[in-house]
Amino acid sequence: MTNDGVLEYADTGLLSPGWADTDVGELLDDRAWVRAMVEVEVALARAQARCGMIPAESARVIATAADAGRIDLRALVAGVRTTANPVVALVAQLTAAVAALDTGAADHVHCGSTSQDILDSAMMLLCARTLRRVLDDLRRAAGAAAGLADRYRGTPMAGRTLTQHAVPITFGLKATTWLQLLLDAIDRVRRVLDGGLPAALGGAAGTLAAYQEYANGAGADGSIELAAAFAAELGLAEPLVPWHGARTPIADVAAALCVATGALGKIAADVQVLTRNEIGEVAEATAAGRGASSAMPQKRNPVYATMIATAARQVPPYALVLYQSMIVEDERSAGGWHAEWQPLREALRLTAGAARNAVELLAGLTVFPERMRANLALTAGAVVSERLTVALAPALGRRAAKELLAQATRQSGTTGRDLADLLTESARAAGHQLDRDHLRELIRPETYLGAAEALVERALRRYRAASTVR
Amino acid sequence: MTNDGVLEYADTGLLSPGWADTDVGELLDDRAWVRAMVEVEVALARAQARCGMIPAESARVIATAADAGRIDLRALVAGVRTTANPVVALVAQLTAAVAALDTGAADHVHCGSTSQDILDSAMMLLCARTLRRVLDDLRRAAGAAAGLADRYRGTPMAGRTLTQHAVPITFGLKATTWLQLLLDAIDRVRRVLDGGLPAALGGAAGTLAAYQEYANGAGADGSIELAAAFAAELGLAEPLVPWHGARTPIADVAAALCVATGALGKIAADVQVLTRNEIGEVAEATAAGRGASSAMPQKRNPVYATMIATAARQVPPYALVLYQSMIVEDERSAGGWHAEWQPLREALRLTAGAARNAVELLAGLTVFPERMRANLALTAGAVVSERLTVALAPALGRRAAKELLAQATRQSGTTGRDLADLLTESARAAGHQLDRDHLRELIRPETYLGAAEALVERALRRYRAASTVR
Amino acid sequence: MTNDGVLEYADTGLLSPGWADTDVGELLDDRAWVRAMVEVEVALARAQARCGMIPAESARVIATAADAGRIDLRALVAGVRTTANPVVALVAQLTAAVAALDTGAADHVHCGSTSQDILDSAMMLLCARTLRRVLDDLRRAAGAAAGLADRYRGTPMAGRTLTQHAVPITFGLKATTWLQLLLDAIDRVRRVLDGGLPAALGGAAGTLAAYQEYANGAGADGSIELAAAFAAELGLAEPLVPWHGARTPIADVAAALCVATGALGKIAADVQVLTRNEIGEVAEATAAGRGASSAMPQKRNPVYATMIATAARQVPPYALVLYQSMIVEDERSAGGWHAEWQPLREALRLTAGAARNAVELLAGLTVFPERMRANLALTAGAVVSERLTVALAPALGRRAAKELLAQATRQSGTTGRDLADLLTESARAAGHQLDRDHLRELIRPETYLGAAEALVERALRRYRAASTVR
Amino acid sequence: MTNDGVLEYADTGLLSPGWADTDVGELLDDRAWVRAMVEVEVALARAQARCGMIPAESARVIATAADAGRIDLRALVAGVRTTANPVVALVAQLTAAVAALDTGAADHVHCGSTSQDILDSAMMLLCARTLRRVLDDLRRAAGAAAGLADRYRGTPMAGRTLTQHAVPITFGLKATTWLQLLLDAIDRVRRVLDGGLPAALGGAAGTLAAYQEYANGAGADGSIELAAAFAAELGLAEPLVPWHGARTPIADVAAALCVATGALGKIAADVQVLTRNEIGEVAEATAAGRGASSAMPQKRNPVYATMIATAARQVPPYALVLYQSMIVEDERSAGGWHAEWQPLREALRLTAGAARNAVELLAGLTVFPERMRANLALTAGAVVSERLTVALAPALGRRAAKELLAQATRQSGTTGRDLADLLTESARAAGHQLDRDHLRELIRPETYLGAAEALVERALRRYRAASTVR
Repeated sequence: MTNDGVLEYADTGLLSPGWADTDVGELLDDRAWVRAMVEVEVALARAQARCGMIPAESARVIATAADAGRIDLRALVAGVRTTANPVVALVAQLTAAVAALDTGAADHVHCGSTSQDILDSAMMLLCARTLRRVLDDLRRAAGAAAGLADRYRGTPMAGRTLTQHAVPITFGLKATTWLQLLLDAIDRVRRVLDGGLPAALGGAAGTLAAYQEYANGAGADGSIELAAAFAAELGLAEPLVPWHGARTPIADVAAALCVATGALGKIAADVQVLTRNEIGEVAEATAAGRGASSAMPQKRNPVYATMIATAARQVPPYALVLYQSMIVEDERSAGGWHAEWQPLREALRLTAGAARNAVELLAGLTVFPERMRANLALTAGAVVSERLTVALAPALGRRAAKELLAQATRQSGTTGRDLADLLTESARAAGHQLDRDHLRELIRPETYLGAAEALVERALRRYRAASTVR
Repeated sequence: MTNDGVLEYADTGLLSPGWADTDVGELLDDRAWVRAMVEVEVALARAQARCGMIPAESARVIATAADAGRIDLRALVAGVRTTANPVVALVAQLTAAVAALDTGAADHVHCGSTSQDILDSAMMLLCARTLRRVLDDLRRAAGAAAGLADRYRGTPMAGRTLTQHAVPITFGLKATTWLQLLLDAIDRVRRVLDGGLPAALGGAAGTLAAYQEYANGAGADGSIELAAAFAAELGLAEPLVPWHGARTPIADVAAALCVATGALGKIAADVQVLTRNEIGEVAEATAAGRGASSAMPQKRNPVYATMIATAARQVPPYALVLYQSMIVEDERSAGGWHAEWQPLREALRLTAGAARNAVELLAGLTVFPERMRANLALTAGAVVSERLTVALAPALGRRAAKELLAQATRQSGTTGRDLADLLTESARAAGHQLDRDHLRELIRPETYLGAAEALVERALRRYRAASTVR
Repeated sequence: MTNDGVLEYADTGLLSPGWADTDVGELLDDRAWVRAMVEVEVALARAQARCGMIPAESARVIATAADAGRIDLRALVAGVRTTANPVVALVAQLTAAVAALDTGAADHVHCGSTSQDILDSAMMLLCARTLRRVLDDLRRAAGAAAGLADRYRGTPMAGRTLTQHAVPITFGLKATTWLQLLLDAIDRVRRVLDGGLPAALGGAAGTLAAYQEYANGAGADGSIELAAAFAAELGLAEPLVPWHGARTPIADVAAALCVATGALGKIAADVQVLTRNEIGEVAEATAAGRGASSAMPQKRNPVYATMIATAARQVPPYALVLYQSMIVEDERSAGGWHAEWQPLREALRLTAGAARNAVELLAGLTVFPERMRANLALTAGAVVSERLTVALAPALGRRAAKELLAQATRQSGTTGRDLADLLTESARAAGHQLDRDHLRELIRPETYLGAAEALVERALRRYRAASTVR
Repeated sequence: MTNDGVLEYADTGLLSPGWADTDVGELLDDRAWVRAMVEVEVALARAQARCGMIPAESARVIATAADAGRIDLRALVAGVRTTANPVVALVAQLTAAVAALDTGAADHVHCGSTSQDILDSAMMLLCARTLRRVLDDLRRAAGAAAGLADRYRGTPMAGRTLTQHAVPITFGLKATTWLQLLLDAIDRVRRVLDGGLPAALGGAAGTLAAYQEYANGAGADGSIELAAAFAAELGLAEPLVPWHGARTPIADVAAALCVATGALGKIAADVQVLTRNEIGEVAEATAAGRGASSAMPQKRNPVYATMIATAARQVPPYALVLYQSMIVEDERSAGGWHAEWQPLREALRLTAGAARNAVELLAGLTVFPERMRANLALTAGAVVSERLTVALAPALGRRAAKELLAQATRQSGTTGRDLADLLTESARAAGHQLDRDHLRELIRPETYLGAAEALVERALRRYRAASTVR
């Protein structure tokens, strides 16, 4: 920090292409956490006033004095090293600010509370806000994917498995896989939000004892009623019992983030393949400078896919930290809880960044049906050898048909000779008569698309149904 | 392998204390996977017969010939190295077995299918079976935890945070945290089962084309109807669209396993602390040889907790592999899919083992209320200093009260003098009169339990409600 | 198990395409661990005899009776659940076997020892053996990569960055990157072997007290001398101090495995890209059935790359378990140690399998220089736009040159017009005279290879130097 | 950002108790990365001048203009989203700054270079600097651990395994385990530094072609000589070949960080156990406010151990990201490289923070030998039952001795009766005469310390030897 409280050092996204320069920076930076923690302290005072534990006037003064903008962040960070969490120092600053207005009210700051109640509740607030933003972007991305599925439902391309051309698919079907994943992600994120991220209120060791003590002193409602009122103030769910040592809410968020970035990462992986110069079936939207190289003027890097991919690589390891933080000893842990904060923040940011970048990617994607057709023709019919096996099996037997096809496609690949010709010749040599024209028809990839169209339609129906439920 | 086909080498649980010697070994070993894959091939034939794609007689013959016990496992494993999956070799063996009964029927084995349809469907069968077993054990464990919560709801003990005595809790409340986690785990596992693990049917690249080709050839129902019939045969959910490249079902299982072992791992961590010689508040059930050491006759190691802990350490990293397997290129991936199998199996086994071991642990747990009381008394009242702060604050102001307490508890700890005496003396020196008898009452830890009892009751209500819904 | 002690259930590689059907199965299966543990017990007896702690005759009898083949594996696995490790039951069986020959000698089995001494020493034996095998295969793979680097040092191809053509490289240079990684991996593995994997000898809690007690009783050498003798018997390094709770040896192995599979995984990732139908610059060796599909006769999947990729995805998460097992409480941990065994075994197997598969992959790789040239020509010269910028900068200024190139390459890509023509025209319009023939020469990708040749030579020199040091 | 370029949002350590408020914040924040990248650009210009590729005057002007303090960080972050890395925007700003002084020199900024050369070289600079700082702190921590080992080499305490008292050890031996781990960590970190973190120079795709082109244009030295000169300017090692796609240097750093935090995490885990109220064998240093709770005046949390533990939980997952970033396709990857930056930075910071906190922890640790003795007495002699087995075995046979001990220790634990009495009585009943006084002597834990003293001395010798080699 410089003397005037401006930070001398900080992370601002420079090393995080997964979310840099999106509004998610502001949503989750240190200031945002301070704001959320202050908000929680105010909500606690208000709830305590509502339950008759502290005077309404105290809650009013606390709300007035609680100006997150005036909190000295540098002092909080110093406090982190002294007490292993930022709340102790925050409470000291808040109390001083309140005391400056009303000494009596200062005694009602953080009343009966413990650091973890404040930090966990703030964490849930920020999770909820970020997940709602993620949800919006996932919906927009799903809309774009649905558009692609619909528009290209009849556009044949090579289906690729284990990197090799397998059988024909349509680009609409590929977009349907993306849509399916996005709808899954939407569902998993929404489930977490609908389930209700809980406010945290337990007191020092989960008995609510100090809250209860204040309540008793004031002849007020019990501490369980306080928990309900506190949750209501924050717009969070009421916790059934304190969860200082029962970290399912964090694990649930972790799971949703993994599914969301898994879905987005799959899309990015496909786009990375399809934008290769030799494949060239899709391209990211162009814009001045976007995807520029520091050295090569011709280059247009698929930067959205790259930024999504980098996010998708990082989120599961961060989620692992969160899952492992379930495994902690005692009523409140020495290290496990503390290990949640930064990985959770970064995982939230990366997911939000990836969702935003996916909207840009999908909405701006250029599709090249001609390249798809050209690539599909590359194997000179071998791409439908599965179908030909089915067609020839009744006459030749399945095993013989499969062998004939394996041989003929190899020969056609090497010599460039027409596959239908080769097949009829080979079959004739083995004493079978095949209809060359029928073979030619079977060999046209665009006639071997199975249920692709119907599958696209099924997914679009799910999409439409999901879109109406918000 | 020996000549008679018996395996010469194998893993049998020797290095997996997390699940060794539980029935989960049998549930998920190589033979079980072969059985499940054979079951899937039979289900496919039956579904195809039902849809009119192949003759009913063929399906019957296939079902008769498909004897998993006669599959040469060694040949399958060799096939894995040739084709990177065990299905190609399995189909060859099955086809030969069917051909031995009926040559025509042999052409109807694995009709229009692809390796991934078979393996993924088998994987879902095994997931469903294992998760149901996990669910049963989690319920039994929850029952045991509920019993502990109920029985010890009035038993005070030290609440510990960051390893130090904080404020009193009850052992019932600690068991409530365990119960809460177990109910969460039950809920997450059940949600996966209720959501319906889907059968996998996509064909070579997700278009169902070869299935459709056979259907067309036989003038039968379409391939989408086949998918429904196939899923019904297996008792799995019908997939909306093929999920070769959309791995949410695996990710959902991963999430459930992480939450389950997270919950169980937390319980084990607590038990490990409480069984320490110096703490001695609980002990695992004794049995001949259980927990024995190879060297020290007096030792009784908490082996259930150890075995649960070892499982809980491993599952999140295995789940990470599964989450990362969502991020794959193309219609079917080259390596990502293959990386799912073993980590998924081991994660399932470890979770099932941990759930079983938790039942034994919780059902057999011995609790020592006297040791809890003795430990609670260790800090000579300091454990309620939070309460005393609340009590003295009105007279002294909160800050002064906190400082007085900090000083008096330190002095009492060093000198062994009575805390109430020290407080009254110090307060008197500062001009305040305190009621020593009232202080003595406040200092009794068992009177400072906040809402512990009510919280236990809330969780038991959730437990009872959950128990009725199966 | 069947009655005759044959296993009914087991993992045999069915789900592990990363190592299935390589000899690494035998090297590390349960039987191999039992053999290694028996070997360790024998070595301990011999070392104790050599130090005068037990009679030489006892050591001889123990060595005779210790027949790993007669150990009842099923009973060991059952013992794992009772005591959380397999050694207690193993010692019981060994003792009985020795007692059958000589009751007195039975008292000298596992004398003063503890489970962890036996299991950890066995683990180090197996690590050393597997790493030596890995080293051999890495060297063979490096030889193959060096061969490719040498042979194709003058074969131009497109350098690709962020999936897009960047500037030309040679295939020799790409193989050089592989070679470099393999040499790094060899170095890291060798360093672990050269550093000396230590025998484990600490006794119950690392004081060697019971060993010392036996030594005192027999008027023999001290326990530290025993540790040296024991390590010598096993061909392992002498531990400076016991490492029950200081797990650096395991972490060192983990690091070597990560680097090795990282190196191999990079090679596989490149091969997967280059074998795509549209790129077709390399192909894996063909063999009957290799890479076959269960449905598509034409397919030839890059199975070696797939199997390496699947191994490379799994090893870092397993290594993570090992790293985290450093973080354990007390003299010997309750869960951390136990979590090492299976992940370490699987990581060793996957690495060994990947190294073996890489030998096959690299030794059998077919390279298609013509396809490389054709792909390089795809961008019609844009691939050397970096060079043209450098060439035009003196005349036009760097920024103007870069803009001119960006525009001309785009136009050439769209219209198919000759890049040299476009550049001279545009430059002329801006008042600059360019030499079209010189431009044409500059545009030939094979003349823009920088130091590729020299870099290949540098790496080959490192390879040759490394090859002489074994 | 506010208008004057000051950051509006940022991470400053608020959520990172693992390193908050240590100087490592400054060492690795965004500004530090910008400074390092600028330093790299200047070094490149200087090296190019030295090799005759650009005029010396240009290098001088570039060095003058390159003022990291004037770089607009906000614009760099915006650039990250446009090009997926911060270098393109940095080069633009640098070029403009140089152009303001000398238009000609502006053409010599970032000459022939690529983003990855700059960022990777900067990354290596920062790794080297941080690792040197880590090394210093590890050495100070080792000094403190050696001091503890030396001072408490004769202080008996309970050795604990699987959470239970096993046999006696000394606190000196426990500190020796810590020392051993710290020396291992020092060795692994030093090895990375000694091995030489390499400068990165490859150009667009690793051929050095553009550098070579500039060299050719200027009739200067070759690009390989440039790489050597560049590395020398930076004080980094010369890369044998470019490592854009061969990420061993990053993996090596990852391994060192895992070993370092593994070692530190083990120490923290032990301290957390030993500071429990019931055990109380050590305490962290006290200081005003340190370890304070927001609610409980009496509490003194072991904050150093907590902060080290939180770091140790996070570093392996971050390292996993780094290991997985080895597995990337092509000459430069689309997402893998980008995923390295933030996890590497955070892992470096957490390791450096943990090392610093370990110095404070170890240097300030208070040891309570009396509590150690008292705890050792808790089991009333059972802690030496291993020894008694050895002592009684000659007379009773080992198995009978072990059974006798198991029974007698259990009885002594339950009844509180003297173990020596119980043993002599039981033995007499079985017809054996034991010497009660000899037994009493054997039962004294402080006489059963095996080689503890000698082992401490061995480790101290290693420490002293390591201390002289810097």
